[in-house]
Amino acid sequence: MEKIIVSRENDIPFNKHWKKCIGTGRLGLALQKEYVDHLERLQQDIAFDYIRGHGLFHEDIGIYKEIDVDGTLTPFYNFTYIDRIFDTFLQNNLRPFVELGFMPKKLASGTQTIFYWEGNVTPPADEKKWEELIYHTVAHFVERYGIEEVLQWPFEVWNEPNLTNFWENADKQAYFQLYKITAKTIKSIHPDLNVGGPAICGGTDEWITDFLHFCHKEQVPVDFISRHAYTSMPPKKKTPDYYYQDLADPNDMLTQLTSVKKLIHDTPYPELPFHITEYNTSYSPTNPIHDTNYNAAYLGKILSHAGDIVSSFSYWTFSDVFEEFDIPRAPFHGGFGLMALHAIRKPTYHLFSFFNKLGDTCLYKDDTMIVTKHRDNTISIVAWNLIHDKGDNHDKTITLSIPFSSDDVFLYREMTNEHHANPWRVWQQMGRPRFPSKDQITLLKSCDAPFIQTDRLRTENKLLTYQLTMAKNEVTLLHFSDIIDETHTYIGLDDSLLTSY
Amino acid sequence: MEKIIVSRENDIPFNKHWKKCIGTGRLGLALQKEYVDHLERLQQDIAFDYIRGHGLFHEDIGIYKEIDVDGTLTPFYNFTYIDRIFDTFLQNNLRPFVELGFMPKKLASGTQTIFYWEGNVTPPADEKKWEELIYHTVAHFVERYGIEEVLQWPFEVWNEPNLTNFWENADKQAYFQLYKITAKTIKSIHPDLNVGGPAICGGTDEWITDFLHFCHKEQVPVDFISRHAYTSMPPKKKTPDYYYQDLADPNDMLTQLTSVKKLIHDTPYPELPFHITEYNTSYSPTNPIHDTNYNAAYLGKILSHAGDIVSSFSYWTFSDVFEEFDIPRAPFHGGFGLMALHAIRKPTYHLFSFFNKLGDTCLYKDDTMIVTKHRDNTISIVAWNLIHDKGDNHDKTITLSIPFSSDDVFLYREMTNEHHANPWRVWQQMGRPRFPSKDQITLLKSCDAPFIQTDRLRTENKLLTYQLTMAKNEVTLLHFSDIIDETHTYIGLDDSLLTSY
Amino acid sequence: MEKIIVSRENDIPFNKHWKKCIGTGRLGLALQKEYVDHLERLQQDIAFDYIRGHGLFHEDIGIYKEIDVDGTLTPFYNFTYIDRIFDTFLQNNLRPFVELGFMPKKLASGTQTIFYWEGNVTPPADEKKWEELIYHTVAHFVERYGIEEVLQWPFEVWNEPNLTNFWENADKQAYFQLYKITAKTIKSIHPDLNVGGPAICGGTDEWITDFLHFCHKEQVPVDFISRHAYTSMPPKKKTPDYYYQDLADPNDMLTQLTSVKKLIHDTPYPELPFHITEYNTSYSPTNPIHDTNYNAAYLGKILSHAGDIVSSFSYWTFSDVFEEFDIPRAPFHGGFGLMALHAIRKPTYHLFSFFNKLGDTCLYKDDTMIVTKHRDNTISIVAWNLIHDKGDNHDKTITLSIPFSSDDVFLYREMTNEHHANPWRVWQQMGRPRFPSKDQITLLKSCDAPFIQTDRLRTENKLLTYQLTMAKNEVTLLHFSDIIDETHTYIGLDDSLLTSY
Amino acid sequence: MEKIIVSRENDIPFNKHWKKCIGTGRLGLALQKEYVDHLERLQQDIAFDYIRGHGLFHEDIGIYKEIDVDGTLTPFYNFTYIDRIFDTFLQNNLRPFVELGFMPKKLASGTQTIFYWEGNVTPPADEKKWEELIYHTVAHFVERYGIEEVLQWPFEVWNEPNLTNFWENADKQAYFQLYKITAKTIKSIHPDLNVGGPAICGGTDEWITDFLHFCHKEQVPVDFISRHAYTSMPPKKKTPDYYYQDLADPNDMLTQLTSVKKLIHDTPYPELPFHITEYNTSYSPTNPIHDTNYNAAYLGKILSHAGDIVSSFSYWTFSDVFEEFDIPRAPFHGGFGLMALHAIRKPTYHLFSFFNKLGDTCLYKDDTMIVTKHRDNTISIVAWNLIHDKGDNHDKTITLSIPFSSDDVFLYREMTNEHHANPWRVWQQMGRPRFPSKDQITLLKSCDAPFIQTDRLRTENKLLTYQLTMAKNEVTLLHFSDIIDETHTYIGLDDSLLTSY
Repeated sequence: MEKIIVSRENDIPFNKHWKKCIGTGRLGLALQKEYVDHLERLQQDIAFDYIRGHGLFHEDIGIYKEIDVDGTLTPFYNFTYIDRIFDTFLQNNLRPFVELGFMPKKLASGTQTIFYWEGNVTPPADEKKWEELIYHTVAHFVERYGIEEVLQWPFEVWNEPNLTNFWENADKQAYFQLYKITAKTIKSIHPDLNVGGPAICGGTDEWITDFLHFCHKEQVPVDFISRHAYTSMPPKKKTPDYYYQDLADPNDMLTQLTSVKKLIHDTPYPELPFHITEYNTSYSPTNPIHDTNYNAAYLGKILSHAGDIVSSFSYWTFSDVFEEFDIPRAPFHGGFGLMALHAIRKPTYHLFSFFNKLGDTCLYKDDTMIVTKHRDNTISIVAWNLIHDKGDNHDKTITLSIPFSSDDVFLYREMTNEHHANPWRVWQQMGRPRFPSKDQITLLKSCDAPFIQTDRLRTENKLLTYQLTMAKNEVTLLHFSDIIDETHTYIGLDDSLLTSY
Repeated sequence: MEKIIVSRENDIPFNKHWKKCIGTGRLGLALQKEYVDHLERLQQDIAFDYIRGHGLFHEDIGIYKEIDVDGTLTPFYNFTYIDRIFDTFLQNNLRPFVELGFMPKKLASGTQTIFYWEGNVTPPADEKKWEELIYHTVAHFVERYGIEEVLQWPFEVWNEPNLTNFWENADKQAYFQLYKITAKTIKSIHPDLNVGGPAICGGTDEWITDFLHFCHKEQVPVDFISRHAYTSMPPKKKTPDYYYQDLADPNDMLTQLTSVKKLIHDTPYPELPFHITEYNTSYSPTNPIHDTNYNAAYLGKILSHAGDIVSSFSYWTFSDVFEEFDIPRAPFHGGFGLMALHAIRKPTYHLFSFFNKLGDTCLYKDDTMIVTKHRDNTISIVAWNLIHDKGDNHDKTITLSIPFSSDDVFLYREMTNEHHANPWRVWQQMGRPRFPSKDQITLLKSCDAPFIQTDRLRTENKLLTYQLTMAKNEVTLLHFSDIIDETHTYIGLDDSLLTSY
Repeated sequence: MEKIIVSRENDIPFNKHWKKCIGTGRLGLALQKEYVDHLERLQQDIAFDYIRGHGLFHEDIGIYKEIDVDGTLTPFYNFTYIDRIFDTFLQNNLRPFVELGFMPKKLASGTQTIFYWEGNVTPPADEKKWEELIYHTVAHFVERYGIEEVLQWPFEVWNEPNLTNFWENADKQAYFQLYKITAKTIKSIHPDLNVGGPAICGGTDEWITDFLHFCHKEQVPVDFISRHAYTSMPPKKKTPDYYYQDLADPNDMLTQLTSVKKLIHDTPYPELPFHITEYNTSYSPTNPIHDTNYNAAYLGKILSHAGDIVSSFSYWTFSDVFEEFDIPRAPFHGGFGLMALHAIRKPTYHLFSFFNKLGDTCLYKDDTMIVTKHRDNTISIVAWNLIHDKGDNHDKTITLSIPFSSDDVFLYREMTNEHHANPWRVWQQMGRPRFPSKDQITLLKSCDAPFIQTDRLRTENKLLTYQLTMAKNEVTLLHFSDIIDETHTYIGLDDSLLTSY
Repeated sequence: MEKIIVSRENDIPFNKHWKKCIGTGRLGLALQKEYVDHLERLQQDIAFDYIRGHGLFHEDIGIYKEIDVDGTLTPFYNFTYIDRIFDTFLQNNLRPFVELGFMPKKLASGTQTIFYWEGNVTPPADEKKWEELIYHTVAHFVERYGIEEVLQWPFEVWNEPNLTNFWENADKQAYFQLYKITAKTIKSIHPDLNVGGPAICGGTDEWITDFLHFCHKEQVPVDFISRHAYTSMPPKKKTPDYYYQDLADPNDMLTQLTSVKKLIHDTPYPELPFHITEYNTSYSPTNPIHDTNYNAAYLGKILSHAGDIVSSFSYWTFSDVFEEFDIPRAPFHGGFGLMALHAIRKPTYHLFSFFNKLGDTCLYKDDTMIVTKHRDNTISIVAWNLIHDKGDNHDKTITLSIPFSSDDVFLYREMTNEHHANPWRVWQQMGRPRFPSKDQITLLKSCDAPFIQTDRLRTENKLLTYQLTMAKNEVTLLHFSDIIDETHTYIGLDDSLLTSY
């Protein structure tokens, strides 16, 4: 049996980069009440710093319009909806990580679109008009929110231009040109505004090197590098409703990040901030893996280690209020969200909220847990038991040895595993109702809370020995704290006089 | 092993008398924010019909006052606070079950008081002024709330006059006289207003016979009989903080009620409604039994059966916002409440909320469970495993056999037992903090939710066989419902393609 | 000066048909948070019974889909969003008045669309598939909400098929055919479900006669007639942002309704319920008239009288969360809404909320006011001073004479006119900010409350004489109530001892 | 006519001492829901920093208790309620300004009490037990809230010991002794905790000199001086319900403060912070003046000027949830509160909320107004028209001349005067209902909002000339801001095409 001896003196690097940013379905969805309800819950429990999503220039927000004025088509910029959306983000203590794209239909040079919601992925028909769109949009943000605020918003140019379905022909030079005019326009508003790219997905990381050399050669401003990271393999099966894939090992993601980090280091911008503006296990919004405890346990290693490599990494996405594939066809459908429809928290939600309850100092971390200390000396641990195999008998036990100053220690534990806090499984037991009734929704919501255990433990020679047993794909949070016992202040207390006790 | 075969054809009597009324600490406490917070939660979850408490005429509400007007003391009736209190009740869908008492200091003939809050328990110094107080008070209720509303409020004269600490000398004739003038005054406002008594505790039930004969002989109006019922024995030990008692068998309470019911039947008012305006296990507000799972399991038989005998029975009380003994000295202190301070739900709270989720038709009930059916054919059961003995090994297993129309049945189960939904135990593990910090309160609150299990069960020949195992002092709620399986509508679904599943 | 003598004995017909139904922007907008915020406010203040809007089958709700299953396109019905929308309505005590349309793109026989949001207005390419769509949709409603609920929902087939922009070629026979198959499909689910049409706008009222004769001849079920009514003239000027029209006299609308009522009467269905499923002054969503006090004053006569003719009349619409012309380009833009963006109440909102405070018995009504009595004898009046002319000097004074039983009467008055509760005017004074800052929004919201006046009036011989003066385009609410004076109960009260008073 | 020329270059001293602290009824009332509702509203609108009230050691909070343990009376400290109260304050962003008193009954040397709620005003029977009480109480605060927090709480010893009704015999030496042992005990917990006195009312200001010399001589720690200030004359008439007094000139208060400031200056502690821990017009909680506009207008000079003299001045009190004289006998009863019962805002509430909307820079102040500038160059003014005479014709007009950079200026004005935002007057018109019905309460609440006016004003040569006319006892808030006119961006806009406009 594994044994871990925790020293209170260690101080292992651990930062909060895991909560710097969170992904969202296209921005237009932020007008929805259900979206806002999910977001409020998320921010109460986890409190991310930034939010990033597609669709800033999409027709459902409608920023760009051309109006016929006496026979001349005149650009008109409508900020009614984007103001409402950004107000919502800021009210929830989230700053926008602004992705500039896709192409407004009226500005597009072609008709290629992506997603159910048909984002146009072609270059601008008129670069001047694109520049004006960027200028008016960013200038409006500055006017409405103040320059001090907007200086804290990163502006990322486009999304995954190295894929043909996100950028016509995945034309690298066309992207660099778009980046150049966009970055220069933004800097013309204020030289300290942050702009970056190339927002690629993995696979053709030479784009990053080329991009930075392009910037260097052409003296194009660049404040950060962004890239995406998924660990899913090619699909085993695609069906009208589902997309099945296996995953690489969690360490594969860390390897990806390290390798890109190294690429950056070998350019003229060796210290440039590096943001993973999207990551997840599978890149498919219909892979049921996202709804599982396996997904939560899988990400434990990544949440605890990726921040050592990158400046931020943004889980794609916080909610299944999302429409890339289609309007959701069932409450559970393999969506990216930390929350399913009706704000039902999935196991991965708990992974994040457990991490949010860790202490400020890290004492230990490995492939299966992270151990931290709070200022009041409470020890807080998140541990996970990732099991790739099918079947049930996969409990794992680890012995923890932790020094304490008191004789007795109070244990508070929360957990999600295949049998607890697993609403996806409950929904299956119910017969997978597509459009559940209100009672069914209430029932599912009641099944999404972590299972709680408490105990009073005895130390020996000021050392606590605790056998931590985790069920299959469990993610568990443990708080061990010193007990200040006041029992003696209850005069005449005698529990033995109580019937049954 | 016990085996219960449930027939869907049975129709055993079961009514909602258990939720007709709930007890409260003295009415003046209803001004408190904490009180109102508890009340709102209670009514959301359980929704009682009436609420009854002491202290209508106490100084903290201050209805009765005498003002010096040019040298003459003139009665002044101040309804500022009682209006606020009754508004609060009605907003929460509770009607007052009005207890008329105790004696305003200015009207009292003596100085004897009861409780930490010093309710005066002596007869009026001036019967005329008492009549005027009753008249003005009830007339004000009618004016403010409308006669149609107030016709639904029972008016109960005094509280436990058969005890010397509640009524000077427990003077029966003095009580009958008080009752007579009070009842006549109320009826002078409207003949259909409801008035009753004698609100005695057990022990001297001949009061009831005498009272009804008195009313008959003197032609005094009487619309209901009220009495209290507790099942605790004489104290084993009293300490400054606690009061320890054993309890009689739960059936003892049913025996008490039946015997009084028979007494009433043998009077000139054989069919008079009979209300238990207070009941609980122990009558002491510092008996830790109230905080336990034992208390919850103990009351299962009573909640399921007492309504067969009486018109209502009112658990004493809904909340530990209560001050008869003292201001609460710790979050758990043996108070009567269904909720501890900070709105922490005790196990008995769950017993009530579980009962509230039963179906309309009762199919079966015995000493350990009640089985009901909903209109949609869901079977809902509340079961309990009352264990008087100390120690841990007291699981109980019962085999249930229930007919279903579908092959698969969905089970949803909630439970509270010594290890789950038992915040009193968590508080002990923490070292019984008297004035817990905000974090400790949050933690305790997080431990008060029922433990939830779900399952998908298979019937055999349309008969479900379920082994119900309950831990010590467990109270459990079970819903068994037919499954409408939609799994086949997910095109291409193949769970086996999912890693780990 | 006009003088009105109110008798308390009169009983003029007045019903609540004015609040039976309210119009809304396309149903998909009901997913928006801003929409729901407006709706909640509306229902708190006015409490309509039904809500009707376009777009049930539009792509943003996505009910109809065809999925490729092994090479075959198979219909799939997605109720995820419509369930959320109808849940929202019902939670706000609104039932859907279901408009069946427009045509899902996948089912359409042509490509003609209407509105910024591109509703397809062509007949079904396949009648069988339309029938199945209707069947599955209505059957789903019955399953989810229960037949007792859905029996109260009217189903209206299509919208304004007599206009070429709403129904390809305004083809009457094609509409009758659509109606026939739709009505029969609905009745196949339950014969008591309500179905009707033809939902025409004015102009070609012979459709109604033809429609009913068609139903009669072909034995097609029909439960109600629906039609729309606007009083605006042809446009004087259309600009990219605005649409200017004059209005006919308010009585023109009553004339329209009476004439259609007569048409119905002369068919085989003389007593068929007749619903005005849309009405307003102008039919343009960019006519600034909708933002004005003139609009409110104009509608006073209609709200007070139209219910004498029709079963319901539904103001088009409750909110400027609306996109027929475009995404709103400024907080005030001439939209139909009772509320502008940011839930700013327009003057017409107050007209409706004032009507909602009238008593149950109508004592008097004319072109300029309606006088009602509450059960407690309070007299409540809504009056309006509609002025077509420009300029400021248009006060109107009317003398009211009302009998009271007390000597003193308390007057409470709320009003909106050009100078009070007129946020449109404040917005103009501010320089018409398109995308107002949060402070500007707060300021505008603070200016939307009715101006309140109170007074204590003296009757003479139990007759109150009150000079009611209204400013230009004022709408005013007056409550006159008897005073129960308690001043004498304050012992020693002497206001003259108070400095300054 | 008065003319005021505002220069944008001036910078007159103006600080926020007026909102440093607010008074409250005894702390035990903070358990009430109505109290908390008022407090939340107050803090949303005005946001005071500290709150001060009597009754920390009163029996309704019950901190001090003596328990019989095996025959020995043992002190027990119960912090259940005070924790709840201070949690409430801190949640509402208020820190306690802790007044240490009065004497717990069990500790008292005598039986003299003050107020309806009977605060004991005698010295401790046992100084040691008082010290222990102080020690345990303050140490508990430190433990629960942290030393960093509690270091910001001033501790003030007792209340108005120079009055015989607040301190037995107004015994100065006894007070000094109490102060000494209290201050030393507090400093023993942490030397930086703040302690002060003597909390006297006016009349015998030599106490302050004597107190400081005593501290100096005996080396008793003292961190601040506190005193109270009222401007009312001896009563003209006292009745069972009311107390009538005239007031001195508002400048009288400033004179009082200056004179005490000078006294302090002439002691060994010349720079000691000086807090007015209570002030108001009348010191009687039944003087109707508190409900009037006169009271609001009277305090304008004091709010704008007293902060130049003292470190804080604390209006006595924020709410009529208050019981010194009695339980409130009517919604308006002359209570100190900024808010009447039911959270009805009185005119003085608006004075404070208007002050809260002033800019950071003061440009001008005099007897009748204060003129400030915001960072965005908006000019904000609070002005008042205090009229001592009876009768109605007391309008006052002042001409303001203010430079602006734009041609057009937007004016937003809020006001309260005898005819607007005067719920006391409405209540009189209604016949002074003592226990108003819910409808009457709703009506009164609807009458407590400031009356709003807006306008668009034209400058001449960049100078705005504005005639400010105020009605009797009006308090008015004015914001003048530059207009950024976007009217020209509405293409084709032509208001003249709109009927009626």
